Amino acid sequence: MWPSTRFTDLVETDLPLIQAPMIGPKPELARAASANGALGSLGCASMTPDQVRAEAAAIRAVTDKPFNLNFFAHTPAPENAEKAAAWKARLAPYYAELGLDAAAPIAVTNRAPFDATMCAVVEEVRPRVVSFHFGLPDAGLLARVKAAGAVVLSSATTAEEAAWLEAHGADAIIAQGAEAGGHRGMFLTDDPARQVGIFALVPQVVDAVKVPVIAAGGIADGRGIAAAFALGADAVQIGTAFLLTSEAGLSPIYRAALKGAASDATVLTNVFTGRPARGIVNRIMREEGPLSPRAPAFPTAAPPLGPLKAAAEAKGLGDFTALWSGQAGRLAREARVSEVLETFVTEAQAVMARFGR
Amino acid sequence: MWPSTRFTDLVETDLPLIQAPMIGPKPELARAASANGALGSLGCASMTPDQVRAEAAAIRAVTDKPFNLNFFAHTPAPENAEKAAAWKARLAPYYAELGLDAAAPIAVTNRAPFDATMCAVVEEVRPRVVSFHFGLPDAGLLARVKAAGAVVLSSATTAEEAAWLEAHGADAIIAQGAEAGGHRGMFLTDDPARQVGIFALVPQVVDAVKVPVIAAGGIADGRGIAAAFALGADAVQIGTAFLLTSEAGLSPIYRAALKGAASDATVLTNVFTGRPARGIVNRIMREEGPLSPRAPAFPTAAPPLGPLKAAAEAKGLGDFTALWSGQAGRLAREARVSEVLETFVTEAQAVMARFGR
Repeated sequence: MWPSTRFTDLVETDLPLIQAPMIGPKPELARAASANGALGSLGCASMTPDQVRAEAAAIRAVTDKPFNLNFFAHTPAPENAEKAAAWKARLAPYYAELGLDAAAPIAVTNRAPFDATMCAVVEEVRPRVVSFHFGLPDAGLLARVKAAGAVVLSSATTAEEAAWLEAHGADAIIAQGAEAGGHRGMFLTDDPARQVGIFALVPQVVDAVKVPVIAAGGIADGRGIAAAFALGADAVQIGTAFLLTSEAGLSPIYRAALKGAASDATVLTNVFTGRPARGIVNRIMREEGPLSPRAPAFPTAAPPLGPLKAAAEAKGLGDFTALWSGQAGRLAREARVSEVLETFVTEAQAVMARFGR
Repeated sequence: MWPSTRFTDLVETDLPLIQAPMIGPKPELARAASANGALGSLGCASMTPDQVRAEAAAIRAVTDKPFNLNFFAHTPAPENAEKAAAWKARLAPYYAELGLDAAAPIAVTNRAPFDATMCAVVEEVRPRVVSFHFGLPDAGLLARVKAAGAVVLSSATTAEEAAWLEAHGADAIIAQGAEAGGHRGMFLTDDPARQVGIFALVPQVVDAVKVPVIAAGGIADGRGIAAAFALGADAVQIGTAFLLTSEAGLSPIYRAALKGAASDATVLTNVFTGRPARGIVNRIMREEGPLSPRAPAFPTAAPPLGPLKAAAEAKGLGDFTALWSGQAGRLAREARVSEVLETFVTEAQAVMARFGR
């Protein structure tokens, strides 16, 4: 059925398909993905240790199949109070417009890098797979993750990053094409203008490493899955195409933006967190970005946007909401996760059967 | 052998493969591509009518197979003497550095849009295919091209542009992914940051139009060709992967840049002509771009760079040379065109055969 099983041999899923870790959708998405044969993923970077424990237990309550815990592995930038204050001041007119007190204290979003505390959670939970974004944690932590029995994945946005990840211990590489929604995993390069589309990236990564390669970015149906295998991938990682599933439980604002998305609706922006990420263009991206030198370093651009997002959403507006999406948002289907996965398999098999004739 | 023959039925080539029109390589490339079963293309935008006649005759001297004449269909911007003078002044330090007289008259590159004169050449030459970049010429000219028996192609960078081209008479659509080298064909949008990778673009274009779709951008070997067919394309257009063929006769500077290209070596720049185009990052792109608001409208940014290019190249430097390349330049092979095409077919068939099992 599938042209390669190196990935499924490695992680022991039925399907060579990872449901991409995302922070927007509800964790029911990961449960349903794992229960239906894919590798469900929890975006743990904004969770507390107790939340990670609880969500992992929730997956295990519905299935004993493998799942993936995803963490960020960035090196936090030194605090820059001046830049943070300037960003806050820049956003002050929006606070005024929405009747918010710019001087009120702001809840800080937890987007901390993977550390000893989270490593202990991994050792306790023992997930089949742990994936990292923005490189890998230090060698000591990585050794503990592997000793806990986890297969380690990380994202490469260039062939050079892929070779680095393999040399530093990744068991498989996610080749993240420029089409992908959410944060660019880039860690050896900082120029979003150079990011590579998956058509050019996957073959170059396959040529550069020996470990299995997972194609990610803009894959939204069976055509894309078959194409990824043709390029030499051993599996695919799909995010945006799951966002309209009932299990994802997306807000009506986010759903509406995705459903009406033109093919060129998205750009890379750093205004939401300080790092480049792909999302559907909205007011804050248009007016302050999409790439602003004023945005403070990741993740400190994010907290001041929180109150704006909440106030605008209460009025039915997505003006300050990060509407993460890949470039094929229009292909996302409104269905249950099990139906989406079944359609993926049927479609991909039909493409492959056509080739076999 | 190939999953679809709609394109080959339409243009009557042996292979569902267009050698992309380019201005850098020698016209021997187009002759060899057509003679060996692909659709060879001549980039006519910088040729005089007599040059077009001569090159078409040169193809016919070696083969009676179909070929493609490519033209630009942009609407020239009104002259802006102030902006042109400012650009010239901006480049003055480079002139001084290279010992050039910035006040000397400069040869103007001919990148005129398709017009009645060139239309008469098409009516005389009667090529099997005429392709346009930057949209389509006006309805009267287009009707004459079609009456001369040519199949008309044009490039779309979004699903919306594809629908527009089909509605305005294109017989097939080139879905030009953001990975592609050279000028973006964009004509309904002007934001290079929104340009779509071919993985996301091709399926959305296929869903948007009824005519055959040709995938372009980052396709450099049989893996990419098979992947394009999986996405729903009826053919592929390949440029960069032909640049190291002996027939292309590229300059040593350009060859060296391509051979050493990292996967993220290219960006979109407007400094060479005024329109966004993908090339390997070099000095002028780094220092003045890659996207500069100072670059005058297409194609008037180009002439003042001519003397700089020539003087730098005489010193063995590609500092001011447009090193157009897609994102898979590294996959280009040093071989004859016939060998490259044979390898493409063998590789693509191997991928498809693997799927059929």
